[in-house]
Amino acid sequence: MADQYAQNPVGTAPPTLPSLRWDEPPEGPVLVLLDQTRLPAEEVELVCTDVPALVRAIQTLAVRGAPLLGIAGAYGVALAAVRGYDVDEAVTLLESARPTAVNLGHGVRRAAAGYRTAVDKGADAEQAARAALVAARELHREDAEASARMAEHGLVLLDELLPGGGHRILTHCNTGALVSGGEGTAFAVALKAHRAGRLRRLWVDETRPLLQGARLTAFEAARNGMPYTLLTDNAAGSLFAAGEVDAVLIGADRIAADGSVANKVGSYPLAVLAKYHHVPFVVVAPTTTVDLSTPDGASIEVEQRPGQEVTEVTAPHVAGAGAGAGGLPVAPLGTQAYNPAFDVTPPDLVTAIVTEQGALSPVTGAGIAELCARSRQVTIS
Amino acid sequence: MADQYAQNPVGTAPPTLPSLRWDEPPEGPVLVLLDQTRLPAEEVELVCTDVPALVRAIQTLAVRGAPLLGIAGAYGVALAAVRGYDVDEAVTLLESARPTAVNLGHGVRRAAAGYRTAVDKGADAEQAARAALVAARELHREDAEASARMAEHGLVLLDELLPGGGHRILTHCNTGALVSGGEGTAFAVALKAHRAGRLRRLWVDETRPLLQGARLTAFEAARNGMPYTLLTDNAAGSLFAAGEVDAVLIGADRIAADGSVANKVGSYPLAVLAKYHHVPFVVVAPTTTVDLSTPDGASIEVEQRPGQEVTEVTAPHVAGAGAGAGGLPVAPLGTQAYNPAFDVTPPDLVTAIVTEQGALSPVTGAGIAELCARSRQVTIS
Repeated sequence: MADQYAQNPVGTAPPTLPSLRWDEPPEGPVLVLLDQTRLPAEEVELVCTDVPALVRAIQTLAVRGAPLLGIAGAYGVALAAVRGYDVDEAVTLLESARPTAVNLGHGVRRAAAGYRTAVDKGADAEQAARAALVAARELHREDAEASARMAEHGLVLLDELLPGGGHRILTHCNTGALVSGGEGTAFAVALKAHRAGRLRRLWVDETRPLLQGARLTAFEAARNGMPYTLLTDNAAGSLFAAGEVDAVLIGADRIAADGSVANKVGSYPLAVLAKYHHVPFVVVAPTTTVDLSTPDGASIEVEQRPGQEVTEVTAPHVAGAGAGAGGLPVAPLGTQAYNPAFDVTPPDLVTAIVTEQGALSPVTGAGIAELCARSRQVTIS
Repeated sequence: MADQYAQNPVGTAPPTLPSLRWDEPPEGPVLVLLDQTRLPAEEVELVCTDVPALVRAIQTLAVRGAPLLGIAGAYGVALAAVRGYDVDEAVTLLESARPTAVNLGHGVRRAAAGYRTAVDKGADAEQAARAALVAARELHREDAEASARMAEHGLVLLDELLPGGGHRILTHCNTGALVSGGEGTAFAVALKAHRAGRLRRLWVDETRPLLQGARLTAFEAARNGMPYTLLTDNAAGSLFAAGEVDAVLIGADRIAADGSVANKVGSYPLAVLAKYHHVPFVVVAPTTTVDLSTPDGASIEVEQRPGQEVTEVTAPHVAGAGAGAGGLPVAPLGTQAYNPAFDVTPPDLVTAIVTEQGALSPVTGAGIAELCARSRQVTIS
């Protein structure tokens, strides 16, 4: 169960609360999650002592973001094992918590494999549980390392594309520490530029309909002391026209074999604006985001989300505000809404794709295949 | 004072409540406004019996939209005159109600001129008041006629651009009867296409940050039985990419002498997307929107609006919901926002400008000048 909240009001909190951490207090091991539904109003940690609590946290989006879900799933298996619960049942529960999140199943299976291999080798329950935890920690560390490498490759690329520094970067949706075991993807590049003294401005698209930019990216930028400005997605055009954007940096939810990039809806219009204004459009994502079984952009199935996300406005949960804080109708009753979660940007609009294996520019199918092969070699070796 | 509300819950109301009407019940003449701050949740009429009530309605945005404000101002002068209040004081109050609304002062001065000319010719108070009312009604009728002519010219142009009909039109912000004495500008063209059986779909951009598309355009489309679908501004790119948009129709807040168009923020990105996808981008506005003293787009001053429109979400006022219905923070405290009210589209991205004097395509400074000259001839004749 989720039996405890550790609350840190904004302003008195330490510089960064991790989005997820394994802890072993005297009462027994726990998985501690930063509750993302309460950001940026409150920084509240949700402490999971069993798998059903973690499944609820995943389903209510308290924890979200593809790489982070994989890590959470792996720790979930370890949690069940160390607390003596049925590991097979935990695997089943976690794998089906969000069926479309590929990484979740991957993380769950990796920790379960660690557990089972140990059992097969004659380990006792405690040793096998430790093997599951080792596998989860390994995945966590690898994801953090991939973030760090993407940030390095990304900043090198930015410096090549924009000699002289003073980068003014536009970003969309949320791609920072809240979706990753490390510092994220596109956001991690901007953060590295900031730490190197070369980030002049981070332009943060609010990212309708769920406002991940306003709620989460602005929160992460503020916590890191970055110079950032929030804008409606509509206002990006004015920034391009005024010459205020030096580069666009976004993440990716899926990259097809030809280099087409599916990402949060609103990414494609930015790619077209960037092309029109001769501004680099850079995608930052780990090679695990590439799906070689999807040949091209047209083959990517785009999730259609409920119309209420558009016809009603919501604000993040605020303690004491009650249920009235969200779901206020703004459109006439019965209004039908078109609400795709993602859009697809063709490779000819993408200046470069930055992965933990390096940057690819121009974006070609052959280049994508080579990056993936390099990644497999590293994993196998 | 505003002493009365006539409430028509959505669903039981007649097909269309006018955005503004003059009425003469036994208690004396009144100006009746549809309270736009309550749309689409409620259709409530606000009955003004004096000028201070009208000024409050203008300042709280119960009545809004450049052409409609001009008409409201003219009727306001007539209201003061017929009820025996000081006309000069009414003129002063109304002219300064919203200093940036050019049309408001124009309407006020036109009714006041009617009143004063009558007085100069020896009319008594009642006759002079009637002269002010005649001037207001004349302006109202002219604006409605301009709407009708724009709709005609616009539909002819659409049929030329898109032979075969079945138009799927994307629009931004609100440009219908709620901003006009008639049926509006861009919306009026879509409505005429609908009545002619040639509108397949009206795609309605929600239009962040103030959601005029979701709140007002969706309301007008629903009331007129049009096939419409609401979308986040972000999702327009996906529609273009899928070939689902045949034309973009928008209004204008100001047109410079070179044909540059200032309109609600988010219009320029649509123009770039339309260009990229070879889709016509059509601006519909009366010639009074042209400002020949503004030479080009760079000379148009763009109003910067408060950041709270972006950092907080609001829903339209709902009876019983109280103050909690609006102004919920979504971004971290202290977040700075870039919030221009308008953007500027250069003439080379505009396929045509449709006015009450006809359509201009391609858009050139010479063409703009000719349209304005034709408009002046009509006014003088």
